[in-house]
Amino acid sequence: MTGSFYPPQRTLMGPGPSDVPARVLGALARPTLGHLDPLFVGLMDEIKALLQYAFKTRNELTLPVSAPGSAGMEACFVNLLAPGDTVIVCANGVFGGRMKENVERCGATAVMVEDAWGQPVSLDKVQAAFADHPEASVLAFVHAETSTGVRSDAAALCALAREHGALSIVDTVTSLGGIELDVDGWGADAVYSGTQKCLSCVPGISPVTFSPRAVERINAREHKVQSWFLDMQLVMGYWGGNTKRAYHHTAPVNALYALHESLVMLREEGLETAWARHARNHAALVAGLEAMGLSMAVAAEHRLPQLNAVNIPEGVDDAAVRSALLNEFDLEIGAGLGALAGKTWRIGLMGHSSRERNVITLLAALESVLGRQGAPITHGDALPAAQAVLAG
Amino acid sequence: MTGSFYPPQRTLMGPGPSDVPARVLGALARPTLGHLDPLFVGLMDEIKALLQYAFKTRNELTLPVSAPGSAGMEACFVNLLAPGDTVIVCANGVFGGRMKENVERCGATAVMVEDAWGQPVSLDKVQAAFADHPEASVLAFVHAETSTGVRSDAAALCALAREHGALSIVDTVTSLGGIELDVDGWGADAVYSGTQKCLSCVPGISPVTFSPRAVERINAREHKVQSWFLDMQLVMGYWGGNTKRAYHHTAPVNALYALHESLVMLREEGLETAWARHARNHAALVAGLEAMGLSMAVAAEHRLPQLNAVNIPEGVDDAAVRSALLNEFDLEIGAGLGALAGKTWRIGLMGHSSRERNVITLLAALESVLGRQGAPITHGDALPAAQAVLAG
Repeated sequence: MTGSFYPPQRTLMGPGPSDVPARVLGALARPTLGHLDPLFVGLMDEIKALLQYAFKTRNELTLPVSAPGSAGMEACFVNLLAPGDTVIVCANGVFGGRMKENVERCGATAVMVEDAWGQPVSLDKVQAAFADHPEASVLAFVHAETSTGVRSDAAALCALAREHGALSIVDTVTSLGGIELDVDGWGADAVYSGTQKCLSCVPGISPVTFSPRAVERINAREHKVQSWFLDMQLVMGYWGGNTKRAYHHTAPVNALYALHESLVMLREEGLETAWARHARNHAALVAGLEAMGLSMAVAAEHRLPQLNAVNIPEGVDDAAVRSALLNEFDLEIGAGLGALAGKTWRIGLMGHSSRERNVITLLAALESVLGRQGAPITHGDALPAAQAVLAG
Repeated sequence: MTGSFYPPQRTLMGPGPSDVPARVLGALARPTLGHLDPLFVGLMDEIKALLQYAFKTRNELTLPVSAPGSAGMEACFVNLLAPGDTVIVCANGVFGGRMKENVERCGATAVMVEDAWGQPVSLDKVQAAFADHPEASVLAFVHAETSTGVRSDAAALCALAREHGALSIVDTVTSLGGIELDVDGWGADAVYSGTQKCLSCVPGISPVTFSPRAVERINAREHKVQSWFLDMQLVMGYWGGNTKRAYHHTAPVNALYALHESLVMLREEGLETAWARHARNHAALVAGLEAMGLSMAVAAEHRLPQLNAVNIPEGVDDAAVRSALLNEFDLEIGAGLGALAGKTWRIGLMGHSSRERNVITLLAALESVLGRQGAPITHGDALPAAQAVLAG
């Protein structure tokens, strides 16, 4: 008969989930409360305030959607779109393509702005798309493309949207807590994220925030939101500021304990300190990888510190390397996705995974595995190079 | 600055979540694996087999949706409906009404079969609805209405659907693991449930199962499923039987550890034994409540053992009683919902909450609180009455 499951302790350096600190796992396992218990309702208020801190926003409509980031994405699209709308969608990786799917399933038209995988979204192309489609009511883009490790200029893109009277939908799944994110400063309108990346919480929840402009559009809807579960007008009845919480669905109580704890930890460290930590460990990793003779897939100025796309050296067996890291070192790194499958590895330094020990362990493990595969790498230089950055 | 959150240990005897055993909370907090880790993929196979056991089905498409029961409901509707379809929806409580919302948001027409709250779905009325609407392609109903504590005749309703060439969508959120549920025996086509009721797992996940007939209809769709997140053709790529798992969304890894553990516990106890335990504790509770002079809101033949709707005696302050139980005894019971708000309490004996200790504690606590409120109850008889049933 099937018995209990005891997973090993992996080191998670892929594209997420990232390492979950013991403190967060401890919170996760605390006794379950009812979702209408006054103590739980108090926790909801704290989570909202903590999310406002992490997103850098005063948006009233800020809450964790009770499902993973893909559902947070869908929540943004189904609440802001109606059939017949036009949306400019920027695609420079997997997640832009997913946005297109969302737009079309709302009965709206997606005007695609395509950039090569590994490149950021081109502002000029977006400008041109608005010129061709003045009717566009939404601009959607990914701040931090998890499939390629590229950062786009969210501030400039949100500004372009406002200039053309459109709302912005911004994917910050991989950026929240890892690099600068300034919802109010950018004037972003609908922003979704995930818990399992730079927040280092367990996967399954999607923090979202909607600007007053976005809420206005939601309240003015004439066409019912096509998803009952993700209808923000209904969700607001439970998560809104009222003292009386209307039952909508049963909140994932324990997952929210964990999210709360991870946000408390982020608040304790401080947003800017967390961003600086991600930048420092990234610099050390890159120094080490380059000293080993490997090359990065993304130009330095567009790189995400939390997600490092590395070119797989010619002749190296992608899957065999990842399996060896997993089986010998309990260390997970990510494969390339879509167009980059087989061409890059994705090394995550997200949240709690972004720590010196992980950088050093990964470099040593990778050097060992690649060396035994006969890959043309330089031996012995990676760790000193990384340590010099960390010491500096 | 906001600190960590330490909830008290409540006894959860409302409409869910129910008490989560320490074993399940322990599983929840085990180290997070990547969602494509071979060990995790193995766990997914076990979860599927365990869900097939719990649902009594061989359906290949059996999996946990990564979101609460409301999303499981939506998954069934959006995958089986297309605009223009006609659905017969049975409503005898809150959740039938929610089904209607789902149907309409799919652009389909809901033909409502209404029964009074507290009554089961009328087979005659469903028969008549099919006669009036031979074009109906789906019959949707709630097996165990959480809002009223009523059980409807699922076997007969599924048979009616098949007889009229329609698929059945069955809400078993509150029944799975608590009362007889026989997906293959009934010939049910799309069945969804929740984790936080009689499985006594944490809230946030929705087990679903689709018959081969339902899968056929999904595969024959010409109209894309309106939800990307809940599109079963995409979800199948990750949860399907292929050795290669296609990334769809990041699975809620830790929540699935907990679901697995709760299903292992159900398998160890045995389905029939669990159903018998629910029946026995229910009988003891009813004997105690009636000995106290309280009355049940639902006729004996339609009662759910896991959710007991009790009439609030005249002159008793509903909210004050629930607050006293919560604050003095850390004991949660449920308020009435919708039409029954203020008229009934809902006492849950679901999963791990269905145990003798809880029956006895609830009776003693309620007697104490009602007595101090001056309610016209009989003192001293409730516990012996319940204990006699438990001893019998």
